[in-house]
Amino acid sequence: MHKTQTILLKNRPDGKPTKDDFKFITEMIESPDKGQLILHTKYVSVDPYLRGRMRNQKSYIEPFALNEPITSAIIAEVGESNHKDFKKGDVVMGELAWKEHQLSNGKGLQKIPSDQAELSAYLGVLGMTGITAYVGMTNIGKPQDGETQVVSGAAGAVGSVAGQIGKIKGCHVVGIAGSDKKVQLLTQDFGMDKGINYKTTADIQKALKEACPNGVDIYYDNVGGEIADAIFPLLNHGARIINCGAIAVYNKTEMPQSISPQPFLIKNSASMQGFIVRDYKDQFSEAREALTQWLQDGKLKHKETIVEGFDTIPEAFIGLFDGDNIGKMVVKVV
Amino acid sequence: MHKTQTILLKNRPDGKPTKDDFKFITEMIESPDKGQLILHTKYVSVDPYLRGRMRNQKSYIEPFALNEPITSAIIAEVGESNHKDFKKGDVVMGELAWKEHQLSNGKGLQKIPSDQAELSAYLGVLGMTGITAYVGMTNIGKPQDGETQVVSGAAGAVGSVAGQIGKIKGCHVVGIAGSDKKVQLLTQDFGMDKGINYKTTADIQKALKEACPNGVDIYYDNVGGEIADAIFPLLNHGARIINCGAIAVYNKTEMPQSISPQPFLIKNSASMQGFIVRDYKDQFSEAREALTQWLQDGKLKHKETIVEGFDTIPEAFIGLFDGDNIGKMVVKVV
Repeated sequence: MHKTQTILLKNRPDGKPTKDDFKFITEMIESPDKGQLILHTKYVSVDPYLRGRMRNQKSYIEPFALNEPITSAIIAEVGESNHKDFKKGDVVMGELAWKEHQLSNGKGLQKIPSDQAELSAYLGVLGMTGITAYVGMTNIGKPQDGETQVVSGAAGAVGSVAGQIGKIKGCHVVGIAGSDKKVQLLTQDFGMDKGINYKTTADIQKALKEACPNGVDIYYDNVGGEIADAIFPLLNHGARIINCGAIAVYNKTEMPQSISPQPFLIKNSASMQGFIVRDYKDQFSEAREALTQWLQDGKLKHKETIVEGFDTIPEAFIGLFDGDNIGKMVVKVV
Repeated sequence: MHKTQTILLKNRPDGKPTKDDFKFITEMIESPDKGQLILHTKYVSVDPYLRGRMRNQKSYIEPFALNEPITSAIIAEVGESNHKDFKKGDVVMGELAWKEHQLSNGKGLQKIPSDQAELSAYLGVLGMTGITAYVGMTNIGKPQDGETQVVSGAAGAVGSVAGQIGKIKGCHVVGIAGSDKKVQLLTQDFGMDKGINYKTTADIQKALKEACPNGVDIYYDNVGGEIADAIFPLLNHGARIINCGAIAVYNKTEMPQSISPQPFLIKNSASMQGFIVRDYKDQFSEAREALTQWLQDGKLKHKETIVEGFDTIPEAFIGLFDGDNIGKMVVKVV
């Protein structure tokens, strides 16, 4: 018998999530039956897309149920095991509940090698966020040597990788982020050509125009909203907008408005393509191999914001909407 | 020496064009030099995209100059000829000036066969508008048997062909148009499954939802604006929006606003792709062959609104924005 803390979705957030939308309870979990194992949570991934699952709305994935545990990508260590494929001490990753300890039947768990990178990297640059950047750039962005790429949320987990892939492919890369500290990282750590702090820039379109003298061929969009609007008039013929996220509008309670993109798309033969990483499941291992190689070659840098303690999970999640994170936001539990 | 009437762009229209934006002058044209020929205008194509060229704005094509003749696709008969490739009586098509008579050096002129279809069809179903529908559907729409397609401007020159291609490919096709007479044509003449009159429908999204019980896989968009907004919530996973035109916003004097498409594109892995027909120049003969075959097989119906007289060209153009046309709008000069 193990005692575990568990985090439930108490309310569907109205606008920006608050701590009051989450409820901590204490549960007891049994010893594992045949075919079961116990998982001890080590690292918890908090991600903007979870906000969408808190809405009671048809989407690509079922919404979270009220008064049920929230789930996200988690790295855990196997404890007591009655499962033939897992033994005590194995480190695994999976879509798991926000619990300190939990039973599993092993389904969906993936073992993680301990010799190639730090464990937390598998929630970020070698995990879903790095892979998201890779498949979005590869399948939609299709960067060509000499093109201009803009990336928003450029200091974030996905954006920082998307921008670096642009550099690896020979693009002029302009990153947009929300603090001077982050903007400094864009050029100094992530090797982008130019960074723009959208919070302190009065005329974002003018700043973008100056930073992109040859127009914009690729826009890796993690935020939507006003920054996306400012890009439309700068698009080149054949430009590709990768619609990866829209964190600027996820907390809106009314239907968000924007500039009509249609005239800009038509006159430039440009595209906007939404995607979710699962669309490209068959490319995950190719993506992980490429990212691991670039990481080992020093071509790809990654940053993490690691917050400690199971209790801090809701705050860490809420902090995403305040831009608290640099790179991947991860909660270290033990 | 020939006397010709010529139509110049007098003012850049502010909002919807008016007759006052055009100026008629009378000119004299010389007899053709060596390598030249005289063209007598027979049919003039008026098209919504010309509105864009009247703006002084960077686009895929140069804006019209003030006090210079407007140009569009024209079918003309060769008169006196000093050009080795053209003889008196040949019928040709090209991007020509709004003149009753004009000199040409033969560049860009294409001879038209007289035995396969009526001449005016080469400005519509077998010309740019039919080809626009074909390349948009083939390259972006990619219709699959059993899918649902919505088309706006469905009784227009491009929309009526795009909707019929959807039917040929096995789609459930819903057309949107702006009068009861047009809506009747959609099902009775063009074989679409359902027509919606957006002007008399109070809740366009509700009407679309009822007409598309399986959601929307393809939206061939000729209008943009509120109809486009109503489509976003109905998109299926992997839906394709073909951004062909945005007539609903072409006359707006302020930057038009819409619902932010990004969240809908992301959660459905859906795309919006703008294009202009020239992007697919290498497919023009394939397109014309397919359209001619469907026309001869009776699978493709076409309608024209033919207005008579050189003097009526500006009115015919302005009428496009009032929805005066059913099918392709053409001015018959002689």
